[in-house]
Amino acid sequence: MGKFIYLDNAATTKIAPEVMETMLPYFTEYFGNPSSVYGFASQNKERIAKQRERIASILGAKENEIYFTGGGTESDNWALKATAEAYGAKGKHIITSRIEHHAILHTCEYLEKQHGFEVTYLDVDENGIVDLEALKKAIRPDTILISIMFANNEIGSIQPIKEIGQIAHEHGILFHTDAVQAFGQILIDVDACHIDMLSASGHKINGPKGIGFLYIRKGVKIRSFIHGGAQERKRRAGTENVPGIIGLGKAAELAADSMEERTAAERALRDYMIERIEKEIPYCRLNGDRTKRLPNNVNFSFRFIEGESLLIMLDMKGICASSGSACTSGSLDPSHVLLAIGLPHEIAHGSLRMTLGADTSKDDIDYVVEELKKIVEHLRGMSPLYEDFVRKQANK
Amino acid sequence: MGKFIYLDNAATTKIAPEVMETMLPYFTEYFGNPSSVYGFASQNKERIAKQRERIASILGAKENEIYFTGGGTESDNWALKATAEAYGAKGKHIITSRIEHHAILHTCEYLEKQHGFEVTYLDVDENGIVDLEALKKAIRPDTILISIMFANNEIGSIQPIKEIGQIAHEHGILFHTDAVQAFGQILIDVDACHIDMLSASGHKINGPKGIGFLYIRKGVKIRSFIHGGAQERKRRAGTENVPGIIGLGKAAELAADSMEERTAAERALRDYMIERIEKEIPYCRLNGDRTKRLPNNVNFSFRFIEGESLLIMLDMKGICASSGSACTSGSLDPSHVLLAIGLPHEIAHGSLRMTLGADTSKDDIDYVVEELKKIVEHLRGMSPLYEDFVRKQANK
Repeated sequence: MGKFIYLDNAATTKIAPEVMETMLPYFTEYFGNPSSVYGFASQNKERIAKQRERIASILGAKENEIYFTGGGTESDNWALKATAEAYGAKGKHIITSRIEHHAILHTCEYLEKQHGFEVTYLDVDENGIVDLEALKKAIRPDTILISIMFANNEIGSIQPIKEIGQIAHEHGILFHTDAVQAFGQILIDVDACHIDMLSASGHKINGPKGIGFLYIRKGVKIRSFIHGGAQERKRRAGTENVPGIIGLGKAAELAADSMEERTAAERALRDYMIERIEKEIPYCRLNGDRTKRLPNNVNFSFRFIEGESLLIMLDMKGICASSGSACTSGSLDPSHVLLAIGLPHEIAHGSLRMTLGADTSKDDIDYVVEELKKIVEHLRGMSPLYEDFVRKQANK
Repeated sequence: MGKFIYLDNAATTKIAPEVMETMLPYFTEYFGNPSSVYGFASQNKERIAKQRERIASILGAKENEIYFTGGGTESDNWALKATAEAYGAKGKHIITSRIEHHAILHTCEYLEKQHGFEVTYLDVDENGIVDLEALKKAIRPDTILISIMFANNEIGSIQPIKEIGQIAHEHGILFHTDAVQAFGQILIDVDACHIDMLSASGHKINGPKGIGFLYIRKGVKIRSFIHGGAQERKRRAGTENVPGIIGLGKAAELAADSMEERTAAERALRDYMIERIEKEIPYCRLNGDRTKRLPNNVNFSFRFIEGESLLIMLDMKGICASSGSACTSGSLDPSHVLLAIGLPHEIAHGSLRMTLGADTSKDDIDYVVEELKKIVEHLRGMSPLYEDFVRKQANK
């Protein structure tokens, strides 16, 4: 096997060996249904409670405020739809931002179309940050929910969550945050940030796919999104994904324990990579906030070239990266996030997201930057837009 | 470790070694997000399509009619809620049965309470079978959906699905079946049975937990239940649970390939067990239909005793069984299924479900029956109800 450098950790991550090891016996040995009476299976109930505790303690929450789901998207759907249902009599207005993940945006569209909700989509500045004054202005007497992501999945911008939570709290409005990209990367305290609901996912933190959780503050009166059996204190039906929950708990613990050291190293590598690209590749633009930024996120636009071609050529060199969110790669539309920070269509098309992991080395970064330089030069050499641009520059 | 006999395969199953082996590389090696562009990850898209094909071919369906979900409960919720939404303008009446799984019953209750639907809950006969004439009579001009389970999870009764499908089809009503217990145990042909939607789950067929699918016939215009990314042809958002899907596909294939031989063996053992219990333990009653019955299901009521005590004492002898559905074990109410087939409360409380697996042996059954005899006798010896009954018999 040739070179393999995985710089798409925001799309998904490799399961950590310790996580895998912890999960394994729950597939084949302790496979019992936690709802069963006999000890062999009912022990799994306690083991699940243990993971709930682990995750709660990371967030400064209580054990009975953590509910396991099938993933971040389900958590987002649950938070928004169940809030709409439980609090719809109080008001039918929701505030979110233009740069949310589609799990939020498409759920909001659904609530608008099917349930008569009105949604305010806040603009963001050129770095992808929500404006607090605009948020305050958007609040109406019938606003029942503010849902703003903790950190953006494409450009890595970290929102002023504490301030947003404070504003929501002062107005008696529920505050949900999609923390799928932030959980495990940033210290989160749900009380300090006045977070009422928080979504997270296993597979973004070197845990398994198909598992996530929703934090629901005690007192928030949302009901089930998935109805059926009495699991998850009657709030989320379906046989518990025991290995998934065990894996998520372990991954969350590992991420929390290693956070300080790991993110410091990632931040240093990230800034080194940004610096080299900015210095060595002309006509590029860093997308997202330079400092209020996920420790592992690098996102650049390269003028005159197509992101798709860039990815294919990087792939040929053994480099895995993405042009934005993995969830939208089927579509030819430019990223809604890049358009929201003001990039014109043709530049939004030429963007590249590289998200580091705990095992990314400086050598990896050097290799990627060298290859990237060659590829960008090569693609620009074939670009009529670039030719045109160079001719105009020469004629100036 | 002492004796360990697992007779709760309707609650959940142990992952088959071949399934585990097939899944493993997808946790650690081929961990990529199927929506990514680079080959390492995008190959997973084809591998997922392959599992879809496998499952479709088992059901006589087409590959693009299979949608992966987080489990049987999610599939049931999706089928019912999305049908209610898509066809609610046409009518707001649903027909189901009293013995459905709570994933159906509680979802129906939700549609009644929150969305103004009317639901007819069909009675069943003393063997737990739906009456076709009653079904026909229940149909109204505003009926948009019939949802009847393929086979019951507690008493194993198999419904006349083909006939129900025929009736639904003749009336132009959509037909959904919760086949969580039947898939992998009974040959299912969605066309022959006129099934429009079918729910199934991985962990009931020696596959993984946290994964299931919904079959949706081409032309059925239901939309997403979980909104977000463009996965599953834009009908079910969320990063695909790749190892889960791979495991489900493998488990489905194994179950289909082994079905004839395996279920023949299970049927023989099941009937042997039923015969011994009926002969050797007095005052018992077989619950469910004697022949139209899941090959691995044994369900008895033992008069004068509590199911819970029975389970605890069986557990002490290394035998895992259940008193009904695992999903309701938290509750003290007697099974709604046993009440629906006409059992009085006190007898419904003394019921025991034992569900065999591919590895259950005649020796296992003999051991269980011997222990069961002793336990029933012991518990009756302590039962004031039994004492009372014996005294009255003696005085006759």
